[in-house]
Amino acid sequence: MSDDAIFRLRGSNPTRSRAVRHAGLVFTVATATTKSASLYAQASEALAEIDAALIARGSSKARILTATIYLADITAKPEFNRAWDAWVDRANPPRRACIGAALEGDDLVEILITAAA
Amino acid sequence: MSDDAIFRLRGSNPTRSRAVRHAGLVFTVATATTKSASLYAQASEALAEIDAALIARGSSKARILTATIYLADITAKPEFNRAWDAWVDRANPPRRACIGAALEGDDLVEILITAAA
Amino acid sequence: MSDDAIFRLRGSNPTRSRAVRHAGLVFTVATATTKSASLYAQASEALAEIDAALIARGSSKARILTATIYLADITAKPEFNRAWDAWVDRANPPRRACIGAALEGDDLVEILITAAA
Repeated sequence: MSDDAIFRLRGSNPTRSRAVRHAGLVFTVATATTKSASLYAQASEALAEIDAALIARGSSKARILTATIYLADITAKPEFNRAWDAWVDRANPPRRACIGAALEGDDLVEILITAAA
Repeated sequence: MSDDAIFRLRGSNPTRSRAVRHAGLVFTVATATTKSASLYAQASEALAEIDAALIARGSSKARILTATIYLADITAKPEFNRAWDAWVDRANPPRRACIGAALEGDDLVEILITAAA
Repeated sequence: MSDDAIFRLRGSNPTRSRAVRHAGLVFTVATATTKSASLYAQASEALAEIDAALIARGSSKARILTATIYLADITAKPEFNRAWDAWVDRANPPRRACIGAALEGDDLVEILITAAA
């Protein structure tokens, strides 16, 4: 089977997809819907969003290959790590990178995921 | 078929490729060639560059899976979005992330693309 | 063959993998183990780390598809480039992006790699 098709999970914004599946891979992205002042709360919400997007595309947390995490404040990384450590599948952890970057509005964290379909 | 080959689209710099194709995927990157002071102009030029690189590797805008966009000034995101919205294939939008990062020289935007071959 | 399996190269941290292999691709990441004040030294060490991780997953420098490089100080890019140029396989250069971002602690550089398995 040539797995040539591209499947897109559309959201409310017509100019981007919440998740895309192709060639055995699922790509998704999440920020927190609720722009809480707590990074832990935003991170937990974004990670739950990722769970939902992966399941909707036939994947799951256990099949994540890579995670790239952008934090509005890199010095808050220990707080992000608490949310991550509570969430990650320790039997199947992804390659991870976590850097500080400027995010839009009140976003404290944005997470990019590549998973196995 | 094992799609094992790697195809590289070389540019003027011998230490990197403009685009690489492998395993059903095409990876490319673009900045504006003309370092205009206008983000809209730089974005439009970089997006046109991506079109050209994708077509050269047998892909196209409609087959983009993910776009990661680095802006020198995150507060200018609405201006970038105007260029993006005019360019994107609304029937086939990619997963997108857009963050603020420090770019080299007069670059206002840099765009990373993963597309289906 | 459906290349469905996911292989993970575990490191000392139980919540992430040093490298992951799936669907014909290997994903890895590196920073310097020695937090030297010299970007050239940190870059060279991180690149050597990538060599080791790729070989451990059945890939190699010649099969790198993409490199994303985060520098703590974008104005030091020429210094990073000296380490890169000494290391890269000029017959097989990857697509490359190099941006400035906030890194943790004394890290001056972090490198993300996608390679062909």
